[in-house]
Amino acid sequence: MSLDLKSLVRTIPDYPKKGILFRDITTLIEHPEGFRESVERIAAGYRGEGITHVAGIEARGFIFGAGVAIALGAGFVPVRKKGKLPGETIGQNYALEYGVDTIEIHADVVGPLHKVLLVDDLIATGGTAIAAVGLLRRTGAVCDDAAFVIDLPDIGGAAKLKAEGVTVSALMAFDGH
Amino acid sequence: MSLDLKSLVRTIPDYPKKGILFRDITTLIEHPEGFRESVERIAAGYRGEGITHVAGIEARGFIFGAGVAIALGAGFVPVRKKGKLPGETIGQNYALEYGVDTIEIHADVVGPLHKVLLVDDLIATGGTAIAAVGLLRRTGAVCDDAAFVIDLPDIGGAAKLKAEGVTVSALMAFDGH
Repeated sequence: MSLDLKSLVRTIPDYPKKGILFRDITTLIEHPEGFRESVERIAAGYRGEGITHVAGIEARGFIFGAGVAIALGAGFVPVRKKGKLPGETIGQNYALEYGVDTIEIHADVVGPLHKVLLVDDLIATGGTAIAAVGLLRRTGAVCDDAAFVIDLPDIGGAAKLKAEGVTVSALMAFDGH
Repeated sequence: MSLDLKSLVRTIPDYPKKGILFRDITTLIEHPEGFRESVERIAAGYRGEGITHVAGIEARGFIFGAGVAIALGAGFVPVRKKGKLPGETIGQNYALEYGVDTIEIHADVVGPLHKVLLVDDLIATGGTAIAAVGLLRRTGAVCDDAAFVIDLPDIGGAAKLKAEGVTVSALMAFDGH
């Protein structure tokens, strides 16, 4: 009796702009079994792989990443927008449709002894995820795995992430943009 | 052999401004047992209380709230800053030191059949927490419980929240501001 997680994701047309079908995971996480099962299925793919830390990308990636970290008995690394972390940080720029954004981690959070799993709710262009993997690898940590709830394969982010040597998993995929 | 969670919280002096001792929970969540134990101790206080949803306040409240929701078998409700939720929302203003901010939830996320536990990393003035409780109660849901990792009792937020009829728990307290 497997729960159909995909049916719990709500699609909101024309958000945040005309022509975009926004895949909304809030209806999935509001569902107790849906949320628990999503986290459990992600974690199940990485048990026994020696993951020491789960890195979640602000802000929706915190929700799934925290659950996966606890399920794996790993530490949790917040990957935050610029200026949000209180300690010494290292940052990585990445291109947006218009302009540039920056993500940061604490400089001392992981290093060469650690193996990090990156978690986010959705991969589209992959810009943020590729920046996060690059940033985590700069510490000397191994970051060769990334897990998402939703993949939008037509946009191509997962393929770009694979080209960086990252093994990518997703619980579900949606066609289109 | 009880883990000393308080010793895992890092104090950063003069952040975000001169004279403030910032209590940094990232060193707690980066610690696998520290993070798991924090979530487990919060959840242990609410087992069998009929909590249907855990509401976490963006962004650090997502990290602990998601873990507590899974531990309790509850749904997770993100309480977000204005303009971040894709569906129809209701919002609540609250005062900052200078100016006003707004938090939002999805309008249809909870209602009269639900019992919500509010979770955040820290309570100081309590402004955001009181706004979140008010917002959740406007849906008809019961929201009479709030759990924090850290209380700063000298600032008085927990007392204000109690005056609103909310039972408040915290894993640890720090003196001062």
